[in-house]
Amino acid sequence: MRIQDENKKEAIFKATVKLVNEIGFVSSSVSKIAKEANVSPATIYIYYKNKEDLLTSTYLQIKRRMGKAMLKDFNENDPVRDIFYKIWINTSDFIYKHPELANYAEQFQNSPYYDSVDSKEAESSFEPMLKVIKKGIEQKIIKDVSLEIIGAFIYYPVFILSNPRRNRNNALSRKNAEKAFQLAWDAIKL
Amino acid sequence: MRIQDENKKEAIFKATVKLVNEIGFVSSSVSKIAKEANVSPATIYIYYKNKEDLLTSTYLQIKRRMGKAMLKDFNENDPVRDIFYKIWINTSDFIYKHPELANYAEQFQNSPYYDSVDSKEAESSFEPMLKVIKKGIEQKIIKDVSLEIIGAFIYYPVFILSNPRRNRNNALSRKNAEKAFQLAWDAIKL
Repeated sequence: MRIQDENKKEAIFKATVKLVNEIGFVSSSVSKIAKEANVSPATIYIYYKNKEDLLTSTYLQIKRRMGKAMLKDFNENDPVRDIFYKIWINTSDFIYKHPELANYAEQFQNSPYYDSVDSKEAESSFEPMLKVIKKGIEQKIIKDVSLEIIGAFIYYPVFILSNPRRNRNNALSRKNAEKAFQLAWDAIKL
Repeated sequence: MRIQDENKKEAIFKATVKLVNEIGFVSSSVSKIAKEANVSPATIYIYYKNKEDLLTSTYLQIKRRMGKAMLKDFNENDPVRDIFYKIWINTSDFIYKHPELANYAEQFQNSPYYDSVDSKEAESSFEPMLKVIKKGIEQKIIKDVSLEIIGAFIYYPVFILSNPRRNRNNALSRKNAEKAFQLAWDAIKL
């Protein structure tokens, strides 16, 4: 893809996130998003079939960026606790810096659009983490409960706590993030 | 208030939740909500100053109902772990039965309307729980971290896990809820 096209795609991505966060999924039309992105509606239709495709692709794109940020400096040979600690801090940094992406993702998961998303595709960026969890369970370091339950303790708390909108007076600083990680680890460790 | 008025208020409450979940905050106008509730817009204005007041009051009402459900059979003289267990199961039952209220509350917390909500008012139903947490910290049963961090482990995981939309294939059954509670307790206990 040419650089100019990449720039346009990024402008469309940012405009979609901004507009949906401001006025919601229903009111965000392709034409309004095009205007916000400073491109023509026809340009959006080069990349996306329709509004649903645009909104869903934006969600999947956020999941990929989040997965990449969470897995920064990931080394599967580190001790399991160290791996989770690194992921926790990476997640906290990412959400703190990009609450708008977290808000979009959360809104999307509460919307009817989410019902038609392929979970496998949405979760593919998180594959290395799932492997670590499975390894941890096999080695009897982590409790043998479902991935959903592990995720609810190792992922959602940092997601909520690091978001300045959700945790208004007290979004996690790096120091608090370390403290909070101890609770997450105590939750999942055997 | 007359019974008829109570019925109308309840119809407006239900219509607000339904419409906002379907079409979002921006598109949900007072007139559409009135139509959905089968009352006149003028009736809504008897109870609420404007759309913002209606949406915010609906959120606060949900928080009150949730608080009441969570505190069912609450006895402050029970051991701290038993109190939290009861609250956990009550929360799971409530969210599983009323995912639409959970979705409204979550969407609301991600919306600009949330910025002008008085946290004290929103959290007043949860006062007895805050007292238990403080008691638990004093008695060195619970870790001495902020209420936000405790809440992120004792409240959000069950909130997410019990919601059929958020946890599509596997919303918490009573049996899983018991298993998941052990992780929450391990997280917060000293």
